[in-house]
Amino acid sequence: MRPSGRARDEMRAISIETGVSRHAEGSCLIRCGDTHVLCTATVEDRVPPFMRNSGLGWVTAEYGMLPRATNTRMRREAKTSQSGRTQEIQRLIGRSLRMGADRVVLGERQITIDCDVLQADGGTRCASITGGWVALRLAADKLIASGALKENPVEEHIAAISAGVHQGQAVLDLDYAEDSDAGTDANFVMTGSGGLVELQGSAEGSPFTEAQFMEMLTLARKGVSELVAAQKAAVA
Amino acid sequence: MRPSGRARDEMRAISIETGVSRHAEGSCLIRCGDTHVLCTATVEDRVPPFMRNSGLGWVTAEYGMLPRATNTRMRREAKTSQSGRTQEIQRLIGRSLRMGADRVVLGERQITIDCDVLQADGGTRCASITGGWVALRLAADKLIASGALKENPVEEHIAAISAGVHQGQAVLDLDYAEDSDAGTDANFVMTGSGGLVELQGSAEGSPFTEAQFMEMLTLARKGVSELVAAQKAAVA
Amino acid sequence: MRPSGRARDEMRAISIETGVSRHAEGSCLIRCGDTHVLCTATVEDRVPPFMRNSGLGWVTAEYGMLPRATNTRMRREAKTSQSGRTQEIQRLIGRSLRMGADRVVLGERQITIDCDVLQADGGTRCASITGGWVALRLAADKLIASGALKENPVEEHIAAISAGVHQGQAVLDLDYAEDSDAGTDANFVMTGSGGLVELQGSAEGSPFTEAQFMEMLTLARKGVSELVAAQKAAVA
Amino acid sequence: MRPSGRARDEMRAISIETGVSRHAEGSCLIRCGDTHVLCTATVEDRVPPFMRNSGLGWVTAEYGMLPRATNTRMRREAKTSQSGRTQEIQRLIGRSLRMGADRVVLGERQITIDCDVLQADGGTRCASITGGWVALRLAADKLIASGALKENPVEEHIAAISAGVHQGQAVLDLDYAEDSDAGTDANFVMTGSGGLVELQGSAEGSPFTEAQFMEMLTLARKGVSELVAAQKAAVA
Amino acid sequence: MRPSGRARDEMRAISIETGVSRHAEGSCLIRCGDTHVLCTATVEDRVPPFMRNSGLGWVTAEYGMLPRATNTRMRREAKTSQSGRTQEIQRLIGRSLRMGADRVVLGERQITIDCDVLQADGGTRCASITGGWVALRLAADKLIASGALKENPVEEHIAAISAGVHQGQAVLDLDYAEDSDAGTDANFVMTGSGGLVELQGSAEGSPFTEAQFMEMLTLARKGVSELVAAQKAAVA
Amino acid sequence: MRPSGRARDEMRAISIETGVSRHAEGSCLIRCGDTHVLCTATVEDRVPPFMRNSGLGWVTAEYGMLPRATNTRMRREAKTSQSGRTQEIQRLIGRSLRMGADRVVLGERQITIDCDVLQADGGTRCASITGGWVALRLAADKLIASGALKENPVEEHIAAISAGVHQGQAVLDLDYAEDSDAGTDANFVMTGSGGLVELQGSAEGSPFTEAQFMEMLTLARKGVSELVAAQKAAVA
Repeated sequence: MRPSGRARDEMRAISIETGVSRHAEGSCLIRCGDTHVLCTATVEDRVPPFMRNSGLGWVTAEYGMLPRATNTRMRREAKTSQSGRTQEIQRLIGRSLRMGADRVVLGERQITIDCDVLQADGGTRCASITGGWVALRLAADKLIASGALKENPVEEHIAAISAGVHQGQAVLDLDYAEDSDAGTDANFVMTGSGGLVELQGSAEGSPFTEAQFMEMLTLARKGVSELVAAQKAAVA
Repeated sequence: MRPSGRARDEMRAISIETGVSRHAEGSCLIRCGDTHVLCTATVEDRVPPFMRNSGLGWVTAEYGMLPRATNTRMRREAKTSQSGRTQEIQRLIGRSLRMGADRVVLGERQITIDCDVLQADGGTRCASITGGWVALRLAADKLIASGALKENPVEEHIAAISAGVHQGQAVLDLDYAEDSDAGTDANFVMTGSGGLVELQGSAEGSPFTEAQFMEMLTLARKGVSELVAAQKAAVA
Repeated sequence: MRPSGRARDEMRAISIETGVSRHAEGSCLIRCGDTHVLCTATVEDRVPPFMRNSGLGWVTAEYGMLPRATNTRMRREAKTSQSGRTQEIQRLIGRSLRMGADRVVLGERQITIDCDVLQADGGTRCASITGGWVALRLAADKLIASGALKENPVEEHIAAISAGVHQGQAVLDLDYAEDSDAGTDANFVMTGSGGLVELQGSAEGSPFTEAQFMEMLTLARKGVSELVAAQKAAVA
Repeated sequence: MRPSGRARDEMRAISIETGVSRHAEGSCLIRCGDTHVLCTATVEDRVPPFMRNSGLGWVTAEYGMLPRATNTRMRREAKTSQSGRTQEIQRLIGRSLRMGADRVVLGERQITIDCDVLQADGGTRCASITGGWVALRLAADKLIASGALKENPVEEHIAAISAGVHQGQAVLDLDYAEDSDAGTDANFVMTGSGGLVELQGSAEGSPFTEAQFMEMLTLARKGVSELVAAQKAAVA
Repeated sequence: MRPSGRARDEMRAISIETGVSRHAEGSCLIRCGDTHVLCTATVEDRVPPFMRNSGLGWVTAEYGMLPRATNTRMRREAKTSQSGRTQEIQRLIGRSLRMGADRVVLGERQITIDCDVLQADGGTRCASITGGWVALRLAADKLIASGALKENPVEEHIAAISAGVHQGQAVLDLDYAEDSDAGTDANFVMTGSGGLVELQGSAEGSPFTEAQFMEMLTLARKGVSELVAAQKAAVA
Repeated sequence: MRPSGRARDEMRAISIETGVSRHAEGSCLIRCGDTHVLCTATVEDRVPPFMRNSGLGWVTAEYGMLPRATNTRMRREAKTSQSGRTQEIQRLIGRSLRMGADRVVLGERQITIDCDVLQADGGTRCASITGGWVALRLAADKLIASGALKENPVEEHIAAISAGVHQGQAVLDLDYAEDSDAGTDANFVMTGSGGLVELQGSAEGSPFTEAQFMEMLTLARKGVSELVAAQKAAVA
């Protein structure tokens, strides 16, 4: 029995509310159970120095938490003072979302996805990727609508889910209580068509086996397909 | 005629939604028109070093903006890298809210009010003070409910509103468009019983007169009384 | 009876010594009782990026304290590590002095006023504004003398003074001992012709009333007129 | 054909030279082809604040590069200014090596492993883990030799190797030229007995398949067994 | 002929005005020609962590420049952002003044000497050492006067002077114009009884000879004896 | 008798191994007894802003220590967080090596010498200068070999050695144990033809005499001639 009372392959309730920001070019508030992340997309007609004159676009991400998103209050972070954990997460979000964008089609534009956790209960990086893709897609839709682009650079869905080994069993979509207690923690980023984008597995108490990893991967495939369906409904 | 179409003494629509954070000891989401601020209160059983062994409590505040709360994306700020504007605002919020707390009754506890602007359209410091007081009061109520305190240290309401001189006329509660165009900008922090807590008036294009300042103060009294009514409804 | 023994509307002795810096384009050492501030003006033929190609000039200020200007030694501050208090003060000085300069007449030049407190005894921000104006005016005079300008952009005097409520009574020009003990602290920046530039009133122990604020404003008008007379004598 | 001319499952030449530092409690210089990393272990009789009075030891790591370890000169990094990439790597090294230490046996001591890249040619994080384990073990041996410990807390080997998909084929132990050109990059950290400690796979050009990931894992098992043999020879 | 018109062994006019700070335990304003440095001494009844329980006192220094002390405006520096030049100078001042204090007699106290350059025209580090000694001595005198100490820990004078090779000739006490043009620049710190405390010689255009160095040393002896005489007059 | 058992004028064993870095334009590992410094030269076809369009080249240096180069582990330093000691050392290395380069011949190029101490046992700044010159010369040789330069800008040797007063006697080339115990510490940088480039003498316990300084200088001349011979052998 999981602490959450969920079945091994059962995800938390998902909701994706779009258009939550008056200023951003694309935005959504994604809720995965008690984890709530506000995702906004900012489009700029210039790329970072290392991409200039390449003809290619760039997608990048920043991740933050409100100080009291967590049980214990945390300090605010600027880009120059982010913890290692924060940087790891936002690098993962950025790499993942770049795999969902055709950078030739995007052209020399940068889209920055800000993922700000309003309330945390485990799985914030996965929610950020899944919600971040929705904000990215809505910004791309807006470029189409305004005539700036003819073809949509964000056709491939990108979504992410966690799995873990809890009391020897693989389980899907860990909440904070489960994550704290899990022997292994893994994150899976996949495309809408099932390709693998990022895999990360980390032993916490003792090493894990190949069989356990394969079980987690199978659970993750199920989770990602549900997330992609929710994304489709949100951007329809 | 004001850019917003409002009457000179007309405030924007106010809503205060409480209990929006699962983790914080007190919280609300205050909306003043398109300005939305998430306010959370964190209670700790210790005070900063300069207050130790004084028997007195402390109330402090931090203010932040999500990167895309504004029309143009802004950089994230840590406590050590806050702009002068951010520091000025959070010092004002902290000073104002301390005037609403009986620090002897509170005892050696610190309550930190985080005011995070999710969406900005002018008047974010005033919304932060008004919403911050609600979070502060709810945290005090919780200390009463848990038996930690017998008497409520947060009895006096604190609320804040802006006024300005727009095309020679005093107007109440500037939105961003009006603020950008105003010749004078002023902020008024008052108690529920009408005492003055903080007055700040700043000429932008040309100096202002004593008469104009008095007109703004009169408008502000009206605004604060409406805000205090909204606070009362929210914490009832 | 005030701690200083002064009458309610009595200022401390003022002296303004000009030409104290061999290198600066304008300079003075202003002494208001035991508060001594060295003010220098630096003229540059370029403006900050946000002002470029506007045809307008810019006036800005920096404020600092020598480590032992105060009773207890304080740490040095760089522009990137200034405390909230320091930033608030220098932003106030900058805004105030900009109201004393005709930026069209100044043209695309920047004048930086550095206000360094050699010895502090309360009222350093007001002394900085009053002395800063003298440095600014002397720098403008030098631009006239060198032929760079034909018309003087610094015609309107700007001066500042504090007032407070001490034991229930409004008093003028608080020194450090009085300020520590005052229930309300206010700063008034005015033009030579009596216009209001900046008003700031802050309750320290308990809220203040409109009547008290008006009394402080009346005292401040008297103080500013004496300061403007001292400025005139200094730059004559 | 790989750019390096190696067979798909062929590692670069490995050498591990121990005792290279006069001051450190354990040290080695590990060379994996042209990647050279100096690993030192520092033993301290205290643990970080969050571990105090737990009875458990702590193992942590720092990773750095000499400015000209790479083809283009890089800036030096302090712990407070490390890039996201550096932090990610040193967090991975620390987590991995903690899985090789019995922290109950170690007792309240901290061992810091510094991994400084003298020359880089791909695979620096894997070389750091493999060499870092040697330094860690030598420091543990020294604690035994000095009588501070009776039982060796570092019995389980930890080693790491990269694999990738190059021109559609899985290959082992990428050098810099191969890594730059690979479609997928993965790192595998395992124990001497074959348990999985950390898995990281990242698509660079296009998503990868489960089959490709399994091929990389198989190659990695072969690589790790060769590295563990080299570790055994080094610490014998 | 020197640019300054002075004879080869002629110093600039020296004045040392004591008691210039109301708050500091010892203070002076030293003027060496157009170089003006405000020196203050702060006494604290505790020493830095590395000196605790040693029974010994500590003397340290900080050096700063007002932004417009120089011909071109310079940025303010905090202790954590000082330039290499600033740190070099203040380390030199601290080492030099420690040689003038009997740290056993001083006991576990720290005296911090702040040397703030109000106006610079070359030789600021030497003026800081010479004036810093006066502030240090006055603070020691105050400890005697208050009964905290019975014996004076600051009996040995410390003074410093520059010399240089200008157009092939050794000259004493370089001002800024001479220093910019000198082929070699040297600083000499000596005790009142003629012992050498710090020697620093640095070739700027071409190497210098032993003979030139000896000539500079001879000039410096003359300069230091004049400075020590001025110190004696100041503290009498 | 010296702690090291060496004669008063006896240096530690010197070795200079060149070509130790695959990436750098010039490199060596210099060993002076147990002090080991890796020196690399990086050539860039641009100079710092203050040298642009001068037609002159620039030579600069950075100095660092691996965390466990010393007996006690030290923190890593970035360029923006270097200690005063580190900055002093690297400024000395840079100034010294610039005296060994004909900057007109070099043309608008910058050569950066990185000196990273792998193991420290006293005299690291002197070893850095001596080894840094070798890296600089090898980089210049490479510019000749590639045809970028016709004439060698690095013809004059620069080498450095320490001396000290140990138990009243001048001794050459202090190791760490001797340095900790020495009453005076001095560093001498000279050219291959015997010119003085930098002299630094610092009293540690008590002042030193002119005679002692001359003795140290004589020892240093002997040391530098041996170092120059080793440089010649290394770059032959």
